[in-house]
This record gives sequence, structure tokens and C-alpha cells, in this order.
Amino acid sequence: MTAHELQPLAHAIRFLSIDAIVRATEGHQGVPLGMAEIATALYAKQLKFNPQDPTWWDRDRVVLSNGHGSMLLYSLLCLTGYEHITLDQVKSFRELGSHCAGHPEYDPKLGIEVTTGPLGQGIANAFGMAVAEAFLNARFGDDLVNHRTYAFVGDGCLQEGIGQEMISLAGHLKLSKLTLLWDDNQITDDGKTELSISENVAERFRVAGWQVVEVDGHNIADVSEALELAKADPRPSMIACRTVIGKGIPRVQGQRGGHSARLYEEDAKAARELLNWPHGQFEIPENILSGWRGFGARNQNTYEDWKARVAALPAEKRAEFERIMRGELPAGWEQVLHDFKRKCFDSDEFPGGIQISGAINQALAEIMPERMVGCADLEAPTGHKGPLQAFTATNRSGSYVHCGVREHLMGAMANGMAAHGGILPLSVTYLAFSDYERPAMRMAALMGLPVKFVFSHDSIGIGKNGPTHQPVEILASLRAMPNMLVMRPADATEAAECWETAMAHRTGPVSMVFARQKLPRVRQAHTEENLSRKGGYVLSEASRSKRQVTLLATGSEVAIALEAQRRLEALGIATAVVSLPCWELFDAQDAAYKAAVLGRDGVRIGIEAALRYGWDQYLGIDGGFVGMKGFGAPGPADALYRLFNITPDAVVLEAQRLLETAGAK
Amino acid sequence: MTAHELQPLAHAIRFLSIDAIVRATEGHQGVPLGMAEIATALYAKQLKFNPQDPTWWDRDRVVLSNGHGSMLLYSLLCLTGYEHITLDQVKSFRELGSHCAGHPEYDPKLGIEVTTGPLGQGIANAFGMAVAEAFLNARFGDDLVNHRTYAFVGDGCLQEGIGQEMISLAGHLKLSKLTLLWDDNQITDDGKTELSISENVAERFRVAGWQVVEVDGHNIADVSEALELAKADPRPSMIACRTVIGKGIPRVQGQRGGHSARLYEEDAKAARELLNWPHGQFEIPENILSGWRGFGARNQNTYEDWKARVAALPAEKRAEFERIMRGELPAGWEQVLHDFKRKCFDSDEFPGGIQISGAINQALAEIMPERMVGCADLEAPTGHKGPLQAFTATNRSGSYVHCGVREHLMGAMANGMAAHGGILPLSVTYLAFSDYERPAMRMAALMGLPVKFVFSHDSIGIGKNGPTHQPVEILASLRAMPNMLVMRPADATEAAECWETAMAHRTGPVSMVFARQKLPRVRQAHTEENLSRKGGYVLSEASRSKRQVTLLATGSEVAIALEAQRRLEALGIATAVVSLPCWELFDAQDAAYKAAVLGRDGVRIGIEAALRYGWDQYLGIDGGFVGMKGFGAPGPADALYRLFNITPDAVVLEAQRLLETAGAK
Repeated sequence: MTAHELQPLAHAIRFLSIDAIVRATEGHQGVPLGMAEIATALYAKQLKFNPQDPTWWDRDRVVLSNGHGSMLLYSLLCLTGYEHITLDQVKSFRELGSHCAGHPEYDPKLGIEVTTGPLGQGIANAFGMAVAEAFLNARFGDDLVNHRTYAFVGDGCLQEGIGQEMISLAGHLKLSKLTLLWDDNQITDDGKTELSISENVAERFRVAGWQVVEVDGHNIADVSEALELAKADPRPSMIACRTVIGKGIPRVQGQRGGHSARLYEEDAKAARELLNWPHGQFEIPENILSGWRGFGARNQNTYEDWKARVAALPAEKRAEFERIMRGELPAGWEQVLHDFKRKCFDSDEFPGGIQISGAINQALAEIMPERMVGCADLEAPTGHKGPLQAFTATNRSGSYVHCGVREHLMGAMANGMAAHGGILPLSVTYLAFSDYERPAMRMAALMGLPVKFVFSHDSIGIGKNGPTHQPVEILASLRAMPNMLVMRPADATEAAECWETAMAHRTGPVSMVFARQKLPRVRQAHTEENLSRKGGYVLSEASRSKRQVTLLATGSEVAIALEAQRRLEALGIATAVVSLPCWELFDAQDAAYKAAVLGRDGVRIGIEAALRYGWDQYLGIDGGFVGMKGFGAPGPADALYRLFNITPDAVVLEAQRLLETAGAK
Repeated sequence: MTAHELQPLAHAIRFLSIDAIVRATEGHQGVPLGMAEIATALYAKQLKFNPQDPTWWDRDRVVLSNGHGSMLLYSLLCLTGYEHITLDQVKSFRELGSHCAGHPEYDPKLGIEVTTGPLGQGIANAFGMAVAEAFLNARFGDDLVNHRTYAFVGDGCLQEGIGQEMISLAGHLKLSKLTLLWDDNQITDDGKTELSISENVAERFRVAGWQVVEVDGHNIADVSEALELAKADPRPSMIACRTVIGKGIPRVQGQRGGHSARLYEEDAKAARELLNWPHGQFEIPENILSGWRGFGARNQNTYEDWKARVAALPAEKRAEFERIMRGELPAGWEQVLHDFKRKCFDSDEFPGGIQISGAINQALAEIMPERMVGCADLEAPTGHKGPLQAFTATNRSGSYVHCGVREHLMGAMANGMAAHGGILPLSVTYLAFSDYERPAMRMAALMGLPVKFVFSHDSIGIGKNGPTHQPVEILASLRAMPNMLVMRPADATEAAECWETAMAHRTGPVSMVFARQKLPRVRQAHTEENLSRKGGYVLSEASRSKRQVTLLATGSEVAIALEAQRRLEALGIATAVVSLPCWELFDAQDAAYKAAVLGRDGVRIGIEAALRYGWDQYLGIDGGFVGMKGFGAPGPADALYRLFNITPDAVVLEAQRLLETAGAK
């Protein structure tokens, strides 16, 4: 089809979007109306996709980074014939239960590659997808993995810091199969972009090593040509598409209101007149629909050929490819961890907590080549590189990404890798910097992506770097996040157990939190059973069946609890120690188990080098707590533990105080 | 002094830093050794400062954005003669209680303008200081306010998204008095910068509208000249200083280890040989010290002249200038809020929660010209512009900063304004996007800066935009942050009261959280007294003195609590409603008050359109809760409240369940 012939197909996006937005009484028309021709050009001639198999592994990925413009994506999925995005679904845009939600919500079966909305996340996810593709392509070759990643993007995504981080690193890594389609409409929510930006955005990309092609975004032929240039260039490409926001609606087009001002029936009518669109509400003429359906059909041979190539693979290679793409773990992975656990238990050397995690990562390196590690310029202190090669512009086989000091991008990259599939992503930095990553972590939790966020330097135990680097509230803020497992192992045994549980956890992200300081052995016996799997367990029972004190602790404070127990028992006070490496898993156990672990008798004391916030769910209002009361301080770790009174003695005193109070009642 | 004569002064920084780091057994030598000449050039000829009056309002501001290089700052403060940074303090570098902490910790009396460490924050603070200066200069003129802001900055700060946001907006706003001194040493913690960046950083600044001057960072004359160029240019300036990391220590200079590898006595010795420095440990020869002391003295006349100009001001202008710079509130400010509160109580119109806050902001506009509002491209939906003019490159009198979609910069800008003084900063966005701002919010809390972080769209009440935009865990994550007040008013009366308390709160930041939806009146009578001041109070007592049920709620859910109370009382169940607009203030009340409010009898139920996490401190383990259990969903607000069962009926059922359980015990 010629560009001229394609124009009505672009209008179909426009009117489907207008009708849905008018019906919903709200929505963001700016993107679907401004990018209709751009999207048409992409789908008509370039995009490798198959509406009959939305999760085809070798499909091109499409990310709507300007997620508020969700009707663009729903229009495309509906017009090209994705099973679940029917016209009825489009009519239910923004209604409760509709697949066509206010913002696109991750569901590859529907054709929605990632959840978007918070700006900048989408293009950073797209970056992660492009890294994943390059890595898998290097391993499996063009025959199996050879696809591109496209992202629709607005001004907001490019103003956000995470967007800027992406621009810088994508250029550095020469991700040639990544293409951005920029909706350069010169309008944001506040009005003209000149309110808040005057730099030449195209030049900014060029400085970062991108190819930039500047086109009229309403000229389908120009956009098509630009997409060809993108495919031919060894750099990532940004197609700067000059557009008119809300194009087609006389009252708002090119105006601030083009972004999301409420649309009415009259607007739909005026647009039909302006664009000479004689068709009724939600009516898509047969010839236009068949045009759209043809774009998927265009890829039929490519799709069949790919399937045939997969089918023709030697059995072992095919099994490995399919295992990885399905996100299944390799045979024997658990044994690696079991062996590690055994070895650590038998050793009398106690490395730093994060170094234990690094050693586990290394132990899994050979058996799990799909593991990719991103780290934000803290390779040495976080120790997760080991024998991994760096992923670079010239070595796509490397599975360690030097992200630079760009934590936010790192987190969103991991999300993109997980959403892409075929990669098991880890993201590594200090716990204090998790706040920089947090918006991406929230998206992982919301999407249910199996990303492992690994953190070191988890408390005042880091010492002299001081309170900027000492988390005190961060465990609480992560535990507060829905669908996020937070693990804080107490020793190498628990670390191995937590890793085992984390690797098997596929329905959401895990935050794996490790101390910088050495973690001495707290387990008194080696067990085949994974005791951490239930999130909490009795590490050391009291000397008498009726407990007087139950000490609940996590991570580096479990050792303090054990020492306090020894002292309390020496005073004749029956004391148990409960380790709680993962609250969320513990909370999911049945009531009887939880009651047995927490103890029905006596008083409870929580011990954690962090704030009490959140602990009352186990301690009750009257329970005791030994931990932090505010921010930390700069000084040696030992001195800080004494300064803040997180010591066995403090636990003993707290226990005695509580027992007296309880006795007095 | 000539550049040649200044060289030994630069070496004094070097050896003070080396000796302190060797003694501390850790530290980051890269910055002080690499930037010694740069800092010397700045202090020798350019910097306007007075060590005898560190908080002189018209001093130039110096920010060490690469805060890990803290010994650079301590060396400068010690050498130039700041009272509190003595040689003994430098010797106690990184010890508990030392002013010379691992990272610089905010204390203007010491000469430390902001806490730095988490990368990118410092240059964004510097940006905020430069905005503050420009605004105050426009109001008070060159005679009173005319100073520059300098920031030392490393590669990490420029890789961080927040740094990129700053580059973009500072160029746009033409902050000509902002100068960055970039330590271009081509090394980060991981090794060579080429591991993670290949863009031309200087060009990236030029694209954003900065003057860039490229110099040899070890050539004092060149740096001095560049500083002159910076002063002469209408753009912000970035002085790209090519440096050798760790310069002076043969074993590590120019290497990855130059950054922070442990230094030993032998390194100090080798450096002394290499640089021909015959002086002993911590020894500063008299002539060198007097050179350094002369830099402060150079400014003596400027300082005295400024003081004389202030003294000569007309009484009223002087009083206003001093009031503003001291951060004192204007006479009559409380009356404005009292009048607003009265007016709102009498009105039967109930605007959206955030619109109430906007109206208060507007009411204060005239009386409090020092208030500056930053907003991240959400002017219309957050309603805090009102009659404020925009602060732009050509209108420095504007007090509304269109930050673009750059929440992180916005938060750090507010911190910089507060640290600068003379500005009462507000930072406005949706609550869901507070995560983007969070690292800056943490710094505000850590520094104890009086920043108001205003948030709208605080729950599922936002409706159809869906779970990406619906906070459920964010109240908990903010309440978990030390030294952060979190306020969530239930109606216009509480909003006015919370504003009053927030404005008067000077020792830390406040998060002011407002609903998007309308907030009907919950107060049954107007009171002169600020009932919200104590953080929680009995809004509606039970019909009998012995309560059976106490409902605890915040914000938009207080109205639900009141309706549930009505229904429960109709069933003969004595029910009280407690409003808890600010937990932190409530927690600070005495035990008797808290017990009286929370109630000694009956059962308790928390009601909040958010997760339970954190609520158990008031509810106990056995208390009831009506709220969210996970992420939200896209749909109309009313439908979502029903879907998630946050309704008066749900509260009634929960009360009945708890009363039965309690009765059964």
C-alpha cells in the first residue's frame, strides 16, 4: 500500500480513539491523534508481529512509553486483530475490568508488553529489551533471535532523568535495534514545552551517539523511510517526528487542550467533517480493517519459517532455547545451592553478607547463562561480577552490564529484560540507593515480573560513610510495597536458602538485602530442608516449653539475638530466637504455624538495625524493640551498634523490663 | 599571588587530605587530590566568603556534589580558618562525633552548605540555590543579594538522571551565576569511565545552553581564567577540568585505586617525595597557612560594605529582608489561615482536596512573597499556581517554577532553596510520583530542611488512571521516613490547620497529602483551636462514655468513618471517630492524651484507602482494618471503593466481627 492508501488506516486509529475517549468521558487524545500516521507506518511495513501469537518470542517489541496515550495501543491491537482487544473492549475503555485500562497494563497475551504511565519507565524498559535481544542473539544467532524494539515516546519521558540515563547508556552500548519514535508535538500538560525546555533534543541524542532522523510525523512515507534508515544504522535511532497534538479535532489540535481536555460528541463530529470521515461511531469500514489485518499477514511466512527453524533445531539446543525463553530453571540448579549451603555451613570463614551473595551468583554462573547482572558502578563493593564478562558494544555475550551511576535505569532495564523473556535479571546496588531505583521496583511489583533486586550495605553496619549511606527506613518502605518479597538473610545458610526461594519465585520481584559486614554462622545444624522458605522459623527454641521471651530478628541482628538468648537463659529466663528472613513469606503461612513460631506465651522483642515501623504486626503495641529510632551516624560499625544500643545487653534489659511490666499487670 | 605561588597552597589540601585519610584508614582521596588546584583557584581569587561569618547571607555558596571527597571540603574550611573545622577536627576525620564525617553533613555554621553523598543531589541543590539567589536578587537588588553558586562535581553526578535533569533546566533558565567544576578524571569506582559512558559530556552541556570551558585542572592559572569567563557569561557555566585522580600518590594516581583504595604511611611518604613536600604529618607551614587565611581577608571590605548597606536600609525594608532571610513568618500569617478555615467551614461548596490546598497557597501569596512553588508539569490538576508568575530566564520575580517532568530535580531544588535561605519552598506533584522525588525527600529529612512536599491524587480515589497512579503503599513508605511529618487532612478545616502546623514547622520537611476527589466537611463545629496540631483527636465521641468501637481514619476516609459511626450508633453500638491527620505529631503527644484519644475500651478499626502496613501501632495485632490489600485497579473512584470494600458497610461488618470475637473471649 502507498502512503496515500495508508492514510485512511491512520484515520481509523484516530476515530477509534476519539470515539472511545468521548464515550469514556476522559482519556488522553494527544498521543493517538498525534501519532496515528507514525504507528501506521510502523505496522504497515516494518513491524514483525503476529496477532495470532502475541507472545511469539522473536516478535518485535513495541512499548508505549507515553502510556497515558493508551488508546493508540488499543487501537493498534484491535485493528490488527489481537484476539483479546476486541471492539467491545475498546468501547469499554477506562471502565472497571476492561482490558483497555487507563494506562496499558502488562499482559503479553493481550499484546501489551509492559505497564506504562509513570514517565520514562517505558523507554528504559525498551532499553532492557534491546539488551536482552542483543544478548540472546549473540547466543542463539539470527535464526532464532533477531528482532527490534520500538518505543513511542513523548516529551515527558525525555525530560525525566531515567530517560536521560537511557539515552546515554543506549548510545554507549550501540543498541542498533532500538528505535524511538518521538512525538515532538511541543506541548506538555502545562502547555508549550518552551515553559520547561529549550535544548535541541535531537542534538542531545546525537551527542549520545544516536542516529537521529527528523521527519514530518504526519507523513507516512517519510516515517517509513526513517524506519528504513533506523534498520540500516549501527547506532540506536531516534526518529524525531514533528506532530500536531490532538490532530484532527479543530477545537484542541495543536493546543494545550490537545493533550487531555475532555472531548465531546461535537468534537467527534467536527473531526469527522475536518478529515472527511463519513463513518459512524466505532465503525471501521471493511476495506480499512482488511488493510490493517494484512499487516499481520505480511509476517506469516517469517513466522512460519522461524517456527520451522526452531523445530529443526538439534534436540538439546532446542530444549535449552525453549527452557530459557519459558523462564524455566535448568536441571540441577537447586543442587548447586544445596552444595553451596553445605559447604558454607562446614566452613569457619565468614565473608561479608553481600560477598556470600556474590559467591552464590558465581556458583550459578555456569549452569544459568541466562542470568544477567546490572550494577550501578559498585562492582567491587557489591561483588557480583565474578567471572562474568561485561556486556559491551562489541561483546554481546557479556552478561554483566556496567550501568554507570544510573540506578533508576538499571532497575527499569531489569524490568525490560524480564518482560522480554529469556533473561533472569539481577540488579545490584547499595540498599541506600534503592530509593533511586524505587519507581522501577514498584513497576516490577505491579507487573509481577521476576526481577531480583540485590542490595548490599543494609544498615548502620556500613559504618563511617555515615547516614546518607545507612538505611534505617528502607526495609520498612520495601516491605510496604505490595507483591515485593523482601529477604534479609542472617548467615550463609539463610543466604543460600533465600536465593533458592527467590530463584523459584516467578510471580513478582524479590528484594534481596545483604549486610556489608561479616555474617557469622547462626544455624546450629545443617538441614536439607530450606528453613527460610516459610519466611520465619524458630532458630533456637527456649530451654523450657513455656517461653518467657521470644526474640524476633533478621539479618545481621540474628547473631545479637542468639547472644542475648544465651545471657537470658543464663539468668533462668526461657528464651527463643525466631529468624524472620522474609516477612511476606511468613505472613502467607497458616495461622497455626505462625502462632507456633511467634510463640503463644511470654513477651516478644524485635531486633533489627532499622526502625520499628511495621514491626508491631508481630510485636503488638506492647512488644519490645531493639533497633534504630532515627537516622544513623558516621562512625565505625561497632561503635554505632553501641551508640544506638543495638546489643545483647540492650536486649536483656528490654526483656527484663517487659517481664516486670507483664508481671505487674 | 601568582599561580606558581599558589601551587604549594594546593599541595596543602593534598597533604592534609592524605594524612587524614591514612589516619582514618579509609576515605576517598580521588577528589581532594584531583581537585586541589581547582579549589585553590576558586578560593584564591573568586570566592566571596567570610570564615568569621560562615552564614553571611550574601556569601557565594559552595557545594561538594561529589560528597565522598569530603576531605576536600574539610581541608578548605580548615585552611581558610572556619572556627569549627580545626586541625584536630581534621585529625578525627571519619571518627564518631567528628565534624569531619565520612560525607559532609549540613551545618551552615560549620561552613557545610548541604549534606552530600548520594550522587547528583548536590548539583541539584546548587541549582536550587541559584534559583533562590536569582529570585531574591530580583526582589532586593544587587546591593543585598548578589552571589554565585559553585559546585564541585564528578562523573557520577552527571550520569545520574537527576544531574541530567538539572543540566537541562539550568540551561533553560539561564542561571548565569551557577558554575560547575567538573573533575574530569575519567575514572569511576568501577574503573575507566569508558565502561559506561562515551558521550562528549562537554557537548551535552553545550546542547543544553551552557557555557563550557575546558581546562587543565591542575593548572591554577587556567582554572582562574575559566572562572572569570564563567562570571562574564550570561549562561550557566561548566568548567571541564581534565584531572588525574589521586594525583600525587605514585601507587594509585590516574588509576582506579586513585578513587578510594586504602592509603598507607608509605603512600604519604611517596607523595611527599614526588611533590617535594618536606613538611610533617598534618603540618601546615606558616606561610602557606597565611596564604590561605588571606583569601578570606580579601573579602573583608566586601563583607563590611554589605553589612553597612543592610544597616543603612530603611527600617521597614531591612526588617522584611531580615525576616525573610531568617526564615521567620510574616506578622498576620496565621490570621490568613484562620480566616480561610472559618470561611471554608461556613461554605457548602466542597472542592477537591488538592484544590483546597491550592486555595490556601493562593491566600498566602500576598503576605508571603518568599514562598516558591515548583511543580513537575501538573499545573492544572494540582492547582498551586494561582496568581503566581512563572520564574523564567527573563522574569526572575516569578515564584512558580515549571520544572518540566523532572520530579527528582524538583525535590532537590526545593532542598537547595531551603538550605540557601530566604525561600519557603513547596514542591508539588502527584503522590504516586513521590517515589521519583524520594531520594531528595530523604535528604530533606536528614538535613532537617523546612521543605513542604505537597502531593495530590493520594489514593484509588483518582479513579480511571489506574494502579500506576494510585498510591497504596506510599503513605506507609513516607511515614517510615525519620524526621518527615506526613499530613493527610480530611476536609478544608483540617487542611487549613495542617497548613498552619506545616508552615510553623522548621526542623524538617512535611509531606502534605491531598485527595483529588472532593472532601466534604467532617467537622461538626468551627473551633478557634487547631485540633489537627496534635496529629490526632476525637472528631466525634461515642454516645456513651464507655466506647465499644473506635474508628481511626485519615483524609478522605474520615467521612466513611463518620457514616459508619452513624450506622453503628443506630445499632446501639457506642462508636467514636478519631481523625489522625498526622501520625508523627500524634506520636509526640503524652501518653495520657494518646490513650484518651485512642480509647481504653472496646475494639479499634483503622480506615484508610491504603495498606495496613504501619497501622498496627494503633490497632494492635487484633485490631480491624478497612483499606487496601494490594495495588489498585483502573475504574471510576466510586466503583473502586466498592470493589475494594472501603465503605461504611464494610466498617460496620468489621466492627460486628470484632465485637463478636471480643465477646467470645
